[in-house]
Amino acid sequence: MSNNLTTPKGFILNGLSAGIKKNNRMDMGIIYSKSPCHYAGVFTKNKIQAAPVKLCKQRLNTSIHGLIVNSGNANSFTGNIGIDNAYEITNLAERELKIDDKSFLSLSTGVIGEYLPMDKLRNGVTGLCQTALKNDNNPYNFMNAIFTTDTNPKIISKEILIDGKNIHILGTAKGAGMIFPNMATMLGFIVTDISISKELLQKALSDVVEESFNSISVDGDQSTNDSVILLSNGEAGNPIISSEDENYISFCKALKEIALNLSKAIVRDGEGATKFITIHVKGALDKLDAWKCASHIANSLLVKTAFFGEDANWGRFIYAVGASGCEVDETKIDITLGNIHLVRHGVRTDFLNDDANYYMKNKDLYLEINLNLGSAEKIMYTCDLSYQYVKINGEYRS
Amino acid sequence: MSNNLTTPKGFILNGLSAGIKKNNRMDMGIIYSKSPCHYAGVFTKNKIQAAPVKLCKQRLNTSIHGLIVNSGNANSFTGNIGIDNAYEITNLAERELKIDDKSFLSLSTGVIGEYLPMDKLRNGVTGLCQTALKNDNNPYNFMNAIFTTDTNPKIISKEILIDGKNIHILGTAKGAGMIFPNMATMLGFIVTDISISKELLQKALSDVVEESFNSISVDGDQSTNDSVILLSNGEAGNPIISSEDENYISFCKALKEIALNLSKAIVRDGEGATKFITIHVKGALDKLDAWKCASHIANSLLVKTAFFGEDANWGRFIYAVGASGCEVDETKIDITLGNIHLVRHGVRTDFLNDDANYYMKNKDLYLEINLNLGSAEKIMYTCDLSYQYVKINGEYRS
Repeated sequence: MSNNLTTPKGFILNGLSAGIKKNNRMDMGIIYSKSPCHYAGVFTKNKIQAAPVKLCKQRLNTSIHGLIVNSGNANSFTGNIGIDNAYEITNLAERELKIDDKSFLSLSTGVIGEYLPMDKLRNGVTGLCQTALKNDNNPYNFMNAIFTTDTNPKIISKEILIDGKNIHILGTAKGAGMIFPNMATMLGFIVTDISISKELLQKALSDVVEESFNSISVDGDQSTNDSVILLSNGEAGNPIISSEDENYISFCKALKEIALNLSKAIVRDGEGATKFITIHVKGALDKLDAWKCASHIANSLLVKTAFFGEDANWGRFIYAVGASGCEVDETKIDITLGNIHLVRHGVRTDFLNDDANYYMKNKDLYLEINLNLGSAEKIMYTCDLSYQYVKINGEYRS
Repeated sequence: MSNNLTTPKGFILNGLSAGIKKNNRMDMGIIYSKSPCHYAGVFTKNKIQAAPVKLCKQRLNTSIHGLIVNSGNANSFTGNIGIDNAYEITNLAERELKIDDKSFLSLSTGVIGEYLPMDKLRNGVTGLCQTALKNDNNPYNFMNAIFTTDTNPKIISKEILIDGKNIHILGTAKGAGMIFPNMATMLGFIVTDISISKELLQKALSDVVEESFNSISVDGDQSTNDSVILLSNGEAGNPIISSEDENYISFCKALKEIALNLSKAIVRDGEGATKFITIHVKGALDKLDAWKCASHIANSLLVKTAFFGEDANWGRFIYAVGASGCEVDETKIDITLGNIHLVRHGVRTDFLNDDANYYMKNKDLYLEINLNLGSAEKIMYTCDLSYQYVKINGEYRS
């Protein structure tokens, strides 16, 4: 990803080490805008939701000035104490920054079921607010503060022109393990200086997340903390976007580019991943069927280990399609791996196994399933399953 | 498992190497009864079903004399040629054994999408029928003939007394990879000399499979070939069981013991498994919720890798419960690991991490989740996920 980041006007991002994680790694971050922001969010569908997710959902669509995030502890399954802690963090930030009550958020990621070490958190909030008030902006620090087992940078910015004004968008995310549609242990933050109505900001985010953060899978699991937050402070000075006009479409296009870039970076950085795989299901009867089929393939251990083993064992694609529960007529299925037609109308073609296995040696792989039953389609991005995944997750605790 | 096997009266089981698998491993087996048998079956729910599954379902509840099974090739996704091949195998066996048309079955397991090497199969059928006509019985050979990546024996017999007659039941199965409820790449064969109506034979099998073969999980996948077949030839000479009386109940109890024994052996022999884990979900609102919760935990990669890593990372149990989609009130959940209460009414108890981690070093583990919302429960059996699983599946092709 680019080193030429531009932070949208009026935003400060930074991070520090508050001692929650070991070895002085950064573990707390702030996003702050002096101008109030519209705030849109999309959250985990896990039925057990962490305290900060409850707080963020409560303030959804209100006007806010920013947020505090910590890694190393998820503040999840922590009962009323956890809720009180999440609110205390925002109260403290609001006092330090001298902004309205209820105008800050708090987010957390890390181990589930342990109370936040509040002494460390309080010091962290104070330090971050001082940094923000000094206009000390460092988005990379913010990114490092949200990382857990991430190994590659996940940050990007983009500039577009709307009505003669330069609009800036910057996004960053953490991912690695537990990534599935519905965004397991994934945090995404996007800030922009565009001027747009709060309703359209939420619509843009919801639509874009469906095609990006909700279309990736590392291991098929959902966490209690997943959140994507989008803030806009209007400082670019464009006339406010209040209908789905061409300016809105331009914004959505740029937003999607950023979200897709971050989502793909999360898959590439999947725990232990050695391959990036695009699964494209076409010709499904309806959207749900296309999703079922693509996500079952993307999450199948046997498919993922076949990719890791660079073995074009296409029978595994077939049974994963059948096991997904989508409507299927086996005499109609087409399967294409890269440019190699493996199956046409349910019959194996005369492709050479050696060619297919040779293709599997690529780092970026493309698998297309055409059910030839309808016109619905779904693209999902996933990675392979390696020894390293098992090692990381057998040994992991923050 | 016991070496003291008793084969039910009138049944012959045997196996041989037909050259389908490498290294002269056994790859074809026969079950034969001179007396006609009632036949009950339960099959995969994968929407793509192998040719032999179609054949077996067509003959379900008819009177048959036995079956031919091969490993090394699943005869799945092989179109009309595959169907013709499955029927040719049964036709050939019926001719060799001089029995009625349509009174034999054929089953297959192995790689998907390749045609059966019929020359080898034909020779195998002839050899097996000659063995059967010579009354040469060797259930262990049959078991070895159905194995793919299995490493431990899976065969058991049992004797019960009904109305003064000795009733014998013998069961064997293959498992290893791809095991999930709905019986992925799993074959089970149970034969008995009991006299029972064909309706009750099917009912007994369907009920027992739900609590045994459909309650196990290795990696959450379903194959196109899974089948459990139960044959009864009535040679024990008991008065026919035609109502759900105490004799029926005794038979079901023995059948369940055999099915559960084989199911657990499949989990213990899960590819790369180092732990056997019993997941017991209690207090669910209804049966479906109990099943959702238990199976999500049993299939979660993060839970399975935590067991492999011997890390009592109980937050992973929590998010798996939440991600399962079952109704849940986080203030009511109890979690018990072995005898250690980890969570009571949604609150972590004061258990010691060292105690919980010490418990995780056991080979047999018990995890209980009480949702405390209703009275439905579900027990599932699963194994951990190890490096070895990835290795086996990255490299596997018959």
